[in-house]
Amino acid sequence: MAGNTFGSLFKLTTFGESHGLAIGGVIDGCPSGIEIDVLEIQNQLDRRRPGQSKITTPRSEKDQVEILSGIFEGKTTGAPIGFIIKNETQNSADYEHLKDVYRPSHADFTYEQKYGTRDYRGGGRSSARETACRVVGGSIAAQLIPQIKVHSFVSQVGTIKMDLSPENVGFTAIENSIVRCPDSKIAKQMIALIENLRDEGDTVGGLITCIVKGVPAGLGEPGFDKLHADLGKAMLSINAVKGFEIGSGFAAVSMLGSQHNDAFTGGFHTSTNNSGGVQGGISNGQDIVFNVAFKPVATIKKEQKTINKKGEEVTLAAKGRHDPCVVPRAVPIVDAMANLVLADHFLRQKVNQ
Amino acid sequence: MAGNTFGSLFKLTTFGESHGLAIGGVIDGCPSGIEIDVLEIQNQLDRRRPGQSKITTPRSEKDQVEILSGIFEGKTTGAPIGFIIKNETQNSADYEHLKDVYRPSHADFTYEQKYGTRDYRGGGRSSARETACRVVGGSIAAQLIPQIKVHSFVSQVGTIKMDLSPENVGFTAIENSIVRCPDSKIAKQMIALIENLRDEGDTVGGLITCIVKGVPAGLGEPGFDKLHADLGKAMLSINAVKGFEIGSGFAAVSMLGSQHNDAFTGGFHTSTNNSGGVQGGISNGQDIVFNVAFKPVATIKKEQKTINKKGEEVTLAAKGRHDPCVVPRAVPIVDAMANLVLADHFLRQKVNQ
Amino acid sequence: MAGNTFGSLFKLTTFGESHGLAIGGVIDGCPSGIEIDVLEIQNQLDRRRPGQSKITTPRSEKDQVEILSGIFEGKTTGAPIGFIIKNETQNSADYEHLKDVYRPSHADFTYEQKYGTRDYRGGGRSSARETACRVVGGSIAAQLIPQIKVHSFVSQVGTIKMDLSPENVGFTAIENSIVRCPDSKIAKQMIALIENLRDEGDTVGGLITCIVKGVPAGLGEPGFDKLHADLGKAMLSINAVKGFEIGSGFAAVSMLGSQHNDAFTGGFHTSTNNSGGVQGGISNGQDIVFNVAFKPVATIKKEQKTINKKGEEVTLAAKGRHDPCVVPRAVPIVDAMANLVLADHFLRQKVNQ
Amino acid sequence: MAGNTFGSLFKLTTFGESHGLAIGGVIDGCPSGIEIDVLEIQNQLDRRRPGQSKITTPRSEKDQVEILSGIFEGKTTGAPIGFIIKNETQNSADYEHLKDVYRPSHADFTYEQKYGTRDYRGGGRSSARETACRVVGGSIAAQLIPQIKVHSFVSQVGTIKMDLSPENVGFTAIENSIVRCPDSKIAKQMIALIENLRDEGDTVGGLITCIVKGVPAGLGEPGFDKLHADLGKAMLSINAVKGFEIGSGFAAVSMLGSQHNDAFTGGFHTSTNNSGGVQGGISNGQDIVFNVAFKPVATIKKEQKTINKKGEEVTLAAKGRHDPCVVPRAVPIVDAMANLVLADHFLRQKVNQ
Repeated sequence: MAGNTFGSLFKLTTFGESHGLAIGGVIDGCPSGIEIDVLEIQNQLDRRRPGQSKITTPRSEKDQVEILSGIFEGKTTGAPIGFIIKNETQNSADYEHLKDVYRPSHADFTYEQKYGTRDYRGGGRSSARETACRVVGGSIAAQLIPQIKVHSFVSQVGTIKMDLSPENVGFTAIENSIVRCPDSKIAKQMIALIENLRDEGDTVGGLITCIVKGVPAGLGEPGFDKLHADLGKAMLSINAVKGFEIGSGFAAVSMLGSQHNDAFTGGFHTSTNNSGGVQGGISNGQDIVFNVAFKPVATIKKEQKTINKKGEEVTLAAKGRHDPCVVPRAVPIVDAMANLVLADHFLRQKVNQ
Repeated sequence: MAGNTFGSLFKLTTFGESHGLAIGGVIDGCPSGIEIDVLEIQNQLDRRRPGQSKITTPRSEKDQVEILSGIFEGKTTGAPIGFIIKNETQNSADYEHLKDVYRPSHADFTYEQKYGTRDYRGGGRSSARETACRVVGGSIAAQLIPQIKVHSFVSQVGTIKMDLSPENVGFTAIENSIVRCPDSKIAKQMIALIENLRDEGDTVGGLITCIVKGVPAGLGEPGFDKLHADLGKAMLSINAVKGFEIGSGFAAVSMLGSQHNDAFTGGFHTSTNNSGGVQGGISNGQDIVFNVAFKPVATIKKEQKTINKKGEEVTLAAKGRHDPCVVPRAVPIVDAMANLVLADHFLRQKVNQ
Repeated sequence: MAGNTFGSLFKLTTFGESHGLAIGGVIDGCPSGIEIDVLEIQNQLDRRRPGQSKITTPRSEKDQVEILSGIFEGKTTGAPIGFIIKNETQNSADYEHLKDVYRPSHADFTYEQKYGTRDYRGGGRSSARETACRVVGGSIAAQLIPQIKVHSFVSQVGTIKMDLSPENVGFTAIENSIVRCPDSKIAKQMIALIENLRDEGDTVGGLITCIVKGVPAGLGEPGFDKLHADLGKAMLSINAVKGFEIGSGFAAVSMLGSQHNDAFTGGFHTSTNNSGGVQGGISNGQDIVFNVAFKPVATIKKEQKTINKKGEEVTLAAKGRHDPCVVPRAVPIVDAMANLVLADHFLRQKVNQ
Repeated sequence: MAGNTFGSLFKLTTFGESHGLAIGGVIDGCPSGIEIDVLEIQNQLDRRRPGQSKITTPRSEKDQVEILSGIFEGKTTGAPIGFIIKNETQNSADYEHLKDVYRPSHADFTYEQKYGTRDYRGGGRSSARETACRVVGGSIAAQLIPQIKVHSFVSQVGTIKMDLSPENVGFTAIENSIVRCPDSKIAKQMIALIENLRDEGDTVGGLITCIVKGVPAGLGEPGFDKLHADLGKAMLSINAVKGFEIGSGFAAVSMLGSQHNDAFTGGFHTSTNNSGGVQGGISNGQDIVFNVAFKPVATIKKEQKTINKKGEEVTLAAKGRHDPCVVPRAVPIVDAMANLVLADHFLRQKVNQ
């Protein structure tokens, strides 16, 4: 149970380190006969790709996916879908100086405690590079459930936040800004903040909001695998995520029952959506709405004090090329994980019907 | 994959409805030779029991656990541990009037959408009664890992919140107050608020904070089964939970990397704990600190408008006896779920050693 | 992964020892809306019950099943089905003399090696009593797939064997003989042999043949979870089973391809059935035919030499009341395990459709 | 649950079709710090490779494994081990004529029934080519448990069988013969038979015996995941396997308890080994001994009658290059599957200790 598989019926298993030959994965459980658009998978990868804009790491990688199996004449066959993304020539020597140092708020120390060893080149398995495989899996999941539409966007960076209520967000505007915030005025402020911090060698956190439309009522297993519990786990498994809330979320703490209850109206809709589209762990047909909190990237160019393996104090300042804020590139990852959860529960519900 | 099993090596499977003959469960994967104190299991159940104080539902149930197997001469044998808690005579007739009505923010509508049917007596499987089985499982889990100490407490009810920083909480004070808030002054205010709302027929949300001490570095699987992802799922699977955050949580969104990074100091400790005890999905030996947001109980005595199965508008006001605020009784459930996650990852890490 | 759960979508988890308070189990994943005849479950248990005839152990137990959850108004609700079978007063003192002795070809030694302890009363968890829970699970599985008919029978005891080819077996004759062999002449010889050996204090092995009719083409997952691989595991997990073969089985070793291949004829049937109803791990719509080999019961009344915990030689002769041949009572267990496998793969195939 | 993953803690997931770009897999759950000899993996693949001798298919493929992740500086890191084996240029056109025909005793018909489609090129996913990935996984498993030695060999081809009792087999002799039978005299007869049948365009079945030495007592989970049940499933999941028996196997049917029981002697050994090294589903420290029955290869050059998709009768005679007998090349596959099962249960037992 080493935890590199996600999902129970639509299963994604991933492998690969930052500086190995390739990363990749296997999707097992995708039904046969599903049309797969490989260009669309690549599009999603391109949204996650480093070097895509001036506010992401300037490190440029192509991240070209190669599908090795499971698709024949444009459709899934029911066989497992294997894929790889080759790692381009990396300069592992860049990381030699990190071999014996534990970077603050990175996984260097914990990997060594767990495994007795670590592949220190580029973060090894702890590198966010692994999330590229999630994007591949998520894009195939999305193609299995075309009636369900997942829309994630950046709703806050540092203290700059969107004010728009979820139902008024224009999703087509998301890709119009490099920060993936659909409010163009706020987006400009976010970009300015990120550029500023990048120049100072610092980083900043951010919030991603996700709205899912077209989910039929009935998805989710009401014991331990509640739909929002699986969404929460999916999001919390993404690097740098510190929190998850659905519907009213943490605001529910201060609310009264008489304010919070979502009254049913005609057509089995509800007039409010504090439930965030899930009641008793099962989707109710309303939009699913959740927030995901990302911490600031741990790699900063400012000098920091830390320790080495011997416990001696050392001083550290990141060289390399890193993201000043993770959320613009994390949007397709949130999309992917949401699609993986929804495709899995879509299949799980078929068993009950 | 109907989702009534939790854990991958230390597995709890639960069954039972509110008004069936009994609820119960099976723990599979508890190693042999562990001394089990059955009285301690009952103590934990008593902390969750309805009717325990003036601010919980006056409905009184004994919730007496019967261990049926897997323990011989006071120790686990390695065989599965089966247990039941009998349901005492319930007046199912009390629920006849709810047979055709969908209560707002309950699971009535979603169960019917999912299963085509529902056991409407007392909420059936969606009743929080199911969490009693989690408390049994969690207490056995806790006895497997006595070196790890889980401390949950109520840190906020409505807008009344504790101000104490986590490290200064006196855990012995938790059980001194019926609201399970260790700050006695704040606890009094919380109790007054809850009593007030109870008299008004309304309910209120709350926040539970959990601090885990004694976790060795190395627990957690860094791919999809990150320690905090599994904790998050565990908490979100509890009835009425709307949000989960670890360490800095949602506050991280507004922070800079230079503020957020936890600097290592001597002895491989960190001077701050924004990570909440987990880095890269693996415990780092610091306290694990997380918050769980609960919505206000959906059952209120105030009149509400809702619809019946035919889609017709009807008016509803809860009769029965219900909790005005769920968090005092949810504290042992949060404890239980945390212990289940930690015991599971404790066993998972044995595989790697 | 302590292995007390069987199945991937239709899951049975069992618990309980021979001399505990009760044995029982949980079925998770049975779809909602299935009519369940509890009397039929009890009928199947009665077929497995000790004391049912002169050739089984004279020990008499009622084995009364109590369904605790998951069924409402005669139908499944989609919630887990919990059940128990109480153990009647057992004389555990009968087993005190076995506390420190390792019986030959029993699990006494291996349990102690594995767990460092064992519940020696009546074999504890290693007792075949656990299979009663499989019969409950299997009977519910059978009611989920009424179109599929599983027929197991005793085809050999010692060297006495039926000569009838599978397609000519009259299934109604199975229950007409206490040895569950549908050939009445052979059945008489088997009964005589068993009575003879019982009087001598010895035991004998036997063979069960299973023929499954009505299986649609398409069940089975062609990688590792081939239909016959899962059937084989199911059968080999029954106490005392030493071998499994499907279709031509071990006879295939000596055959030529030109003899063995099953030629297709009109209507997509095959003229022979050396495949035993499964090709490439997937059912082909023909009858599924397999054999299960049972060893002679290890508990004999004849004196045997063995060792105790200290490694000292001791002499042993079973007292108690035991079966001279296990196969007559194993027929409903083979039925149950076959139904569990088929129901599971029936649900798995729904995911692909 | 599409069934392309094997194992519960040491997990192998495979993907790939005969005529895709590559086959491959992921091993998840291999502990960190294990030295891996990649040449040894390739050695095992070479034992399975087509074209290795005059009695296997003359089709020649290099089957070169590429490890993509999870190994750093010669040792496992605890991260998943991804690998691929590229498919060399295949002439898919060779298979065009099979597009609409159901070959007898192949999986053509059942794949179409299950998936509504099939990749007909070279058998697609049903090709035994998939077993190359099992050999990679099995070789890594073997390197995790070097104290356990698995020895498989061909003990029967057609009616020609070895007479040697298992304990007298010289394992070094296995690789001395191209048929992998350690009895050189019998091996010659087997080879002659296979050559003869190859020239006639026919095929023949065979038996593989496996003897495992060095298994500690205590492996196996005594409920459903008995050690021999998992071995049986592993073997039955290999293409062309029709039967599995352990220890006395089918011969136990005719034996008496007084003959069959394995008497304990000094040092907790047994004087006979009818149990085949497993009692109550748990290894007892004796050699594990089992047999695996393989049917004759279904692809024969002799003319056969069959049907096409429309149900019309057609005549078929294999062209291509095929094995006249599968067992010589199946020996490393049996080894691999046995090692996968043993490594998995080795890790499972660590949880209990």
